[in-house]
Amino acid sequence: MIQQLTIIGVGLIGGSLARALRAAGAVGEVVGCGRDEQHLARARELGVIDRYTTDPAEAVRGAQVVLLAVPVGAMESVMRAIAPALPAEAVLTDAGSTKGSVIEAARRAFGGLPANFVPGHPIAGTENSGVEASFAELYGGRRVILTPTGASRPEAVERVRAMWVAAGAEVTEMDPAHHDRVLAATSHLPHLLAFSLVDTLAKMDEKEEIFAYAAGGFRDFTRIASSDPQMWRDICVHNEPALLAMLDRFEADLRNLREAIASDDGDYLQKVFGRAKAARDRFCDNE
Amino acid sequence: MIQQLTIIGVGLIGGSLARALRAAGAVGEVVGCGRDEQHLARARELGVIDRYTTDPAEAVRGAQVVLLAVPVGAMESVMRAIAPALPAEAVLTDAGSTKGSVIEAARRAFGGLPANFVPGHPIAGTENSGVEASFAELYGGRRVILTPTGASRPEAVERVRAMWVAAGAEVTEMDPAHHDRVLAATSHLPHLLAFSLVDTLAKMDEKEEIFAYAAGGFRDFTRIASSDPQMWRDICVHNEPALLAMLDRFEADLRNLREAIASDDGDYLQKVFGRAKAARDRFCDNE
Repeated sequence: MIQQLTIIGVGLIGGSLARALRAAGAVGEVVGCGRDEQHLARARELGVIDRYTTDPAEAVRGAQVVLLAVPVGAMESVMRAIAPALPAEAVLTDAGSTKGSVIEAARRAFGGLPANFVPGHPIAGTENSGVEASFAELYGGRRVILTPTGASRPEAVERVRAMWVAAGAEVTEMDPAHHDRVLAATSHLPHLLAFSLVDTLAKMDEKEEIFAYAAGGFRDFTRIASSDPQMWRDICVHNEPALLAMLDRFEADLRNLREAIASDDGDYLQKVFGRAKAARDRFCDNE
Repeated sequence: MIQQLTIIGVGLIGGSLARALRAAGAVGEVVGCGRDEQHLARARELGVIDRYTTDPAEAVRGAQVVLLAVPVGAMESVMRAIAPALPAEAVLTDAGSTKGSVIEAARRAFGGLPANFVPGHPIAGTENSGVEASFAELYGGRRVILTPTGASRPEAVERVRAMWVAAGAEVTEMDPAHHDRVLAATSHLPHLLAFSLVDTLAKMDEKEEIFAYAAGGFRDFTRIASSDPQMWRDICVHNEPALLAMLDRFEADLRNLREAIASDDGDYLQKVFGRAKAARDRFCDNE
């Protein structure tokens, strides 16, 4: 049971955690914090939070657990704002999609890595954002990756783990750099490609017709291009080395496919497409 | 009412059309043809076809409408096989995803474009293939694009249109080259990217872990990579100029995004991502 949970950034991720913990009876008071007061008032109306403030330092007062669910580009300034007021015993965690950059932000903001800081990343979400899109079941059966730093106290890790388990998630631990490489591959690069393709098409003269004749496959392929632009801008900038390494690998393979098409090398195409189908059918068989 | 419909290639597309026309009472006898006798026997068991033969010339005898639903790479050889036997009054159409190449195949196979040939392309499908995956509702509310040649008789176009309308589809007409450009953008390029990305990831050392941490966005993004490799090999080879033109456009835009990430140009990223989100939200709002 968490007596007071403070959530800074009450959107889909933070809001869904609050709803899940309430539903599980695993939280007492939920304090919300953000920049937009109307938005916070709406979150209280929805019963997601109990009270709110736009001042991060005030928000963390009395908290046992503090979750930072802001875009990764905003982590450092929020950490600087809460640093003077964070109770010594409070456990600090985050829900950022990049982990190396959040750890570096903490090191700078706190002048070193706090023992009660446990970086985390719930692998869940939808293309919708905002507290209105939040729901208690978002984390059911989904994975949350914790990337404890060398400084993280085992008791703090345990507290964060228990919180996500109460919300229905499966919790695993990973090295931060490894997390950033894995997520660049399965999440950050696909988002970059989807945004890029839709923008390329949207700039074409025949764009009305192009989208009018798009079928279900296109809708699925581009669903993630409806995600929050600011959040994804931050992720791309803050996971730069891992994302560019994956992008280079992807582009090299794509150039080989281009070459095969240009030279009518159907065997090469069928080999690649067949391998891809086999891999996807095998790995995504639980949908 | 079509007295005898011959379908060459009884898979998802041909099988679903047969089921839909039967459900609508718009077809008498359905004759199936393909290379795999067991597969045809299964189609008859399922009630999709009434009888079958593995000989295309025999299959078209007595037909009023002949649908070619084979991979586009097989169109020419099938056309050559039916050319001597096709009844003069029979209307020939196809369901190929590329139209320029199918028209050229007809020109070669028949020594010119038959007046009763009406190229077509139903914009429908799933990542599953085969007659077992076919269902009568596949075309309900979906678009079918007809690309009549200069030689196509209006009565033949009307007959094909009426067939697809009876199956529940909305039928439109388009210039073949224009069709190939539009489909390269919304279908062929996305399939190429999805196959390519999944294969890139499947070749990595951490592939087990990468796929284990893939979330819903990745599953949606890569769903089309579970499509039939042979069919997509053919489409890529047979729509080469339009597909490569789209690919080059995509790669140029992607290189600009790469540059923006490498130079921490968040404004550029947010501008592109925001435009893409706006376009997708606008054009795909009916899902």
